[in-house]
Amino acid sequence: MSTLRRDPVVGRWVINTDELEKRTSIVEKPEVSESSPECPLCAGNEGSTPPELFAIRPDGSSPNSPGWEVRVVPNFSAAMQIGGELNRRAELMYDLMDSIGTHELVIGSPEHVSNMADLPESQFNRIFSAYRQRMLDLKTNPDLRSVFIYKSYGTESLLESLSHTHSHIVATPVTPKSIKEQYVGAKKYFQYKERCVYCDIVRQEIMQKKRIISSNAKFIAIAPFASKYSHEVWILPRTHNCDFENSPEKDFPYLSSILKEILLRIKAALNNPPYNFALFSGPNKKGREGYWKTIDQDYHWHIEIMPIPKNLEGFEWATGFYLNDTTPETAAQKLREVKVRGY
Amino acid sequence: MSTLRRDPVVGRWVINTDELEKRTSIVEKPEVSESSPECPLCAGNEGSTPPELFAIRPDGSSPNSPGWEVRVVPNFSAAMQIGGELNRRAELMYDLMDSIGTHELVIGSPEHVSNMADLPESQFNRIFSAYRQRMLDLKTNPDLRSVFIYKSYGTESLLESLSHTHSHIVATPVTPKSIKEQYVGAKKYFQYKERCVYCDIVRQEIMQKKRIISSNAKFIAIAPFASKYSHEVWILPRTHNCDFENSPEKDFPYLSSILKEILLRIKAALNNPPYNFALFSGPNKKGREGYWKTIDQDYHWHIEIMPIPKNLEGFEWATGFYLNDTTPETAAQKLREVKVRGY
Repeated sequence: MSTLRRDPVVGRWVINTDELEKRTSIVEKPEVSESSPECPLCAGNEGSTPPELFAIRPDGSSPNSPGWEVRVVPNFSAAMQIGGELNRRAELMYDLMDSIGTHELVIGSPEHVSNMADLPESQFNRIFSAYRQRMLDLKTNPDLRSVFIYKSYGTESLLESLSHTHSHIVATPVTPKSIKEQYVGAKKYFQYKERCVYCDIVRQEIMQKKRIISSNAKFIAIAPFASKYSHEVWILPRTHNCDFENSPEKDFPYLSSILKEILLRIKAALNNPPYNFALFSGPNKKGREGYWKTIDQDYHWHIEIMPIPKNLEGFEWATGFYLNDTTPETAAQKLREVKVRGY
Repeated sequence: MSTLRRDPVVGRWVINTDELEKRTSIVEKPEVSESSPECPLCAGNEGSTPPELFAIRPDGSSPNSPGWEVRVVPNFSAAMQIGGELNRRAELMYDLMDSIGTHELVIGSPEHVSNMADLPESQFNRIFSAYRQRMLDLKTNPDLRSVFIYKSYGTESLLESLSHTHSHIVATPVTPKSIKEQYVGAKKYFQYKERCVYCDIVRQEIMQKKRIISSNAKFIAIAPFASKYSHEVWILPRTHNCDFENSPEKDFPYLSSILKEILLRIKAALNNPPYNFALFSGPNKKGREGYWKTIDQDYHWHIEIMPIPKNLEGFEWATGFYLNDTTPETAAQKLREVKVRGY
């Protein structure tokens, strides 16, 4: 039976079915070439990037030279640039502002590795430390209302052409629509229930088990109840915390372990598909002291991972109404049962 | 300069820029083969489809035989099926219901034509008449809260594999998220301004001229101010009307003329790209007599057309924050200036 399921946070209804004539709805194999002889992100080519903003250099080496383990640089052709004024204005009935913001690349390895799944867990820890440092720094600027992190693997687009593993930190003067919907949805739920919606999801999924893919002492990984996309996965901290950047660094090894495991399971179960993930944290409260007052109670940082779908349906583009051809219960079972070394 | 622009209806901010290193962000050429020897949608193969729901048969021929000009049939592998009960229920904190609804195909030509742009205007008129008949019929069922129409050309997906021109009419027991956002946004605007937001858009675009692609006595075609996608086009009736199906049939020739012109301009300017369009009309008010009371004042039916973008950015998937690499002013100029025969 096909069912319509409602996302408990944002209220989006999606169709979930296992009954469609089976065609693969996920892109298989990376679209970007794995090797790259003149890769500007490899150690030794530091001069090919804009000057670094941050690096982890245990040997005390100088900025913009080899010796780093993780390195953060401004994006080459940034869609948004720091500095200047927002210059909010009208064009008669319309509203616009200058596109002020930041766009940084977190280079995830000094060696040329394409899929983050193939990095050791210790390197995941360093990447999370870099995310944390940069988020803390960016959130000191009250003009940057939203800071979010995402990573694309194996896909090519306007801003994505390098196969060397890297993630993006984007800070914007407005809150992107889907992120705002998460905050608003979580707030509505809290106002009604006096509980965090994500904490409730964690509790229910642990109890029901059928959508859990993996778990450890600090995190769970689930196929969400109202998955928009086939084999979508969320990683949620068990303990409530609005902001990733304020979460305890001692939990990072648990996060590294479960994220690496999930990326390996996706790689094994779905033939190394291109994927995106996003790390969603709370809004920047700097300079907005009353910001929604209860946002720290309402919201719960987490990671969402999606293997990239083949062409969307026309109605998905047009209406935001999604058709998922793999129910999360089926996806969770497949991802849980696939054999991956070490997990 | 890149600008952040706010959609005047739904409030979504998008980045619009002409400054990115130019790569083509639109898929070129159809992905689906044009010919199809055993096409189930061609005249003569009526037995290959489910029995017809509606047809335009000027010769009075029998249902499910040749002689039709436009024919409407249930979709082959419908994601949603009419009948039964919604059975709204909970799975602890989650909400779900059975996937009741309808999914119909409007076959746009008895001959095997792939791109609707290549049909004569008279055939567009017949397709709009079929849309209207089916919408009026579907909206007599109070369980079907939303009826929307879309068409995909040249793209392949789970539900899309036939190259013969056809469009889809989908009726659902819930209002898809993006459509609800249009209704809510239009209502907020009306509450504040006591005017329809789409009427204001029509007036401003006629005055400013720079985003107009074409216009006639009844309709205008524009590149919208906060375009999410490169070369997005909206067709708006000049006269306020909430519902397409209640708009005057005598206006259909004007609609046929401007839609055919726009599809030809897109084909010529962008190398015959795959595209989607959607026709958005008001909600089904049947059985919901008080439905938002002012919705007839608030909302304004229209068509949105989008050439299909190449891969979305990771942050577009994750955050609903779009990067458009062709400003609507540039897109409007290009689409306006390309030569197409007869327009």
